Amino acid sequence: MTPSKPLTIWCNAKFTDRATQRLVAGLAAHQLVWAAHASPSVLDGGAPEPALAGADIVLGQPDPAACLASARLRWVEVTSAGYTRYDTPQFQEAFRARGAAFSCMSGVFADPCAQHVLALMLALGRQLYASHLDQLGAHGWAYGPRRAVSRLLTGQTVLLLGYGAIGRRLTELLTPFGMKIYALRRRARSESGVHIVAEEQLTAVLPLADHVVNILPDNASTQRFVNARRLACCKPGARFYNVGRGTTVDEPALIEALRSGRLDAAGLDVFETEPLPPDNPLWTTPNCFCTPHTAGGRHDQDEAIVAHFLANLTAFSTGGKMTDRVV
Amino acid sequence: MTPSKPLTIWCNAKFTDRATQRLVAGLAAHQLVWAAHASPSVLDGGAPEPALAGADIVLGQPDPAACLASARLRWVEVTSAGYTRYDTPQFQEAFRARGAAFSCMSGVFADPCAQHVLALMLALGRQLYASHLDQLGAHGWAYGPRRAVSRLLTGQTVLLLGYGAIGRRLTELLTPFGMKIYALRRRARSESGVHIVAEEQLTAVLPLADHVVNILPDNASTQRFVNARRLACCKPGARFYNVGRGTTVDEPALIEALRSGRLDAAGLDVFETEPLPPDNPLWTTPNCFCTPHTAGGRHDQDEAIVAHFLANLTAFSTGGKMTDRVV
Repeated sequence: MTPSKPLTIWCNAKFTDRATQRLVAGLAAHQLVWAAHASPSVLDGGAPEPALAGADIVLGQPDPAACLASARLRWVEVTSAGYTRYDTPQFQEAFRARGAAFSCMSGVFADPCAQHVLALMLALGRQLYASHLDQLGAHGWAYGPRRAVSRLLTGQTVLLLGYGAIGRRLTELLTPFGMKIYALRRRARSESGVHIVAEEQLTAVLPLADHVVNILPDNASTQRFVNARRLACCKPGARFYNVGRGTTVDEPALIEALRSGRLDAAGLDVFETEPLPPDNPLWTTPNCFCTPHTAGGRHDQDEAIVAHFLANLTAFSTGGKMTDRVV
Repeated sequence: MTPSKPLTIWCNAKFTDRATQRLVAGLAAHQLVWAAHASPSVLDGGAPEPALAGADIVLGQPDPAACLASARLRWVEVTSAGYTRYDTPQFQEAFRARGAAFSCMSGVFADPCAQHVLALMLALGRQLYASHLDQLGAHGWAYGPRRAVSRLLTGQTVLLLGYGAIGRRLTELLTPFGMKIYALRRRARSESGVHIVAEEQLTAVLPLADHVVNILPDNASTQRFVNARRLACCKPGARFYNVGRGTTVDEPALIEALRSGRLDAAGLDVFETEPLPPDNPLWTTPNCFCTPHTAGGRHDQDEAIVAHFLANLTAFSTGGKMTDRVV
């Protein structure tokens, strides 16, 4: 492979020392420019960054308007799986028109998100939360009652709302359980091991599902997608999980479905307002189990992000196929 | 298939109404004799039962001495996966000598036990217990700290102590995670996807394992098998699980390994004394998570037991291969 032309890479992500060292080493042949202000959150672009305009490539969570304003920019890779701020026709058409690439990090977060969903499904099936409460309380030995409601995933039915990298990984993890798997998806392309469902079929499929897993991204068409009408279609006693985005669920309707017993339980990792305020009723709704947006968490996250970027940089430089490319 | 000769089946198990109806219907061509006293526990044969002596087949948890005393008895099926009271040379040689069969119900309990282990592994990996404590407490949003210690099973190493029906099922469930799987087993027969380890190799393999899963049965050779010496060989930060029998673990040594931080956490379903007394220190040992012997629990247990027995009865009557036959 001939050495490619040195590129200028602007980065506003903040990594661990170890991941930073790997990034610096991997970019020895290029010019790495750190932002003046590391992005404090995936949803905040930070203060104005004039150096971005001189970059060929951006890694991090850049301001979408600044990306659009830079004629030189040829590729943006965001350090998250979600990319709501860049998921607009204006942004994507502008990138397409100038032949620039836009990619995300689904591949870094799909495996932890899928394992998080399976963890919640199994924890509920095996009554781990109920046993934990016994342990924290009077040390009761609830052998009979817990066994009587312990359930196997084997042979049950699951419906995935949204089917991208997380859904595909979850499908792999569920294979040995012999579950029937349905997945709602905009594009009706068939997938092995999964029955793809179009939106107009959803009302017919919701009553079949023992588990409804919401993996929808946040965009104009998904706001409060899981609403009272759809929750009323669920199988009585179904379990609901959300590792997509909180805005895709009508939270008061979900609380009502849990309080009425329509849903047996919910495992939620994302919320309309994050951090979830201490007085939010989801914290105290019966059988509602919350995790603080940790589904994508992995102790080696920053190293995995750097590895993802460096592999894509090689593909970008050599005209190869980039992973998680959106535009 | 020609109708087989009517057989007399003595049963001291107590089933749900629905399972009882299935058993009665399935034995319409035979004679079903209920014990005067249903066995109150898998470890108790109950009061003397003279009717047992007139049976061809016994289903339940019979007194081993009464089984040995009956010359007519041709097959005993116990309604549990474990069979400690019948796991003696005296019992098994007597059955072999008279051409009688002895079987257990591993097949009914292997899948829930394997799912229980995976539930515990994933709950710890995804920090579900820590997030549950946050939810029960001040509703703190521990995004950063929880993500930093969340782990993937992907690529980790697991060591199974004991490799029977539960270990095989767990191996199936772990396949999509791409883990390295070792299993300690008396017979060194190779198994697909698993590195079988003999006892003399254990000290060399323990330091490699991120997860040590104890599935050992209770017998003379397994008492306190997991002792201070073996725990000291574990990888620092390893996680330990027990769904075998509590007698196979030196519990004070396990508590010390958790308190010292040698082990990161334990998920225990079985204990030397059951029910685990409220003042037992395992309830309050840091990072020790207890479930009340529910790993084998499934809401459809009795129906699955009856189905297992009826399928084996057909095999027994027609000379076919019986499931979970020990002798």
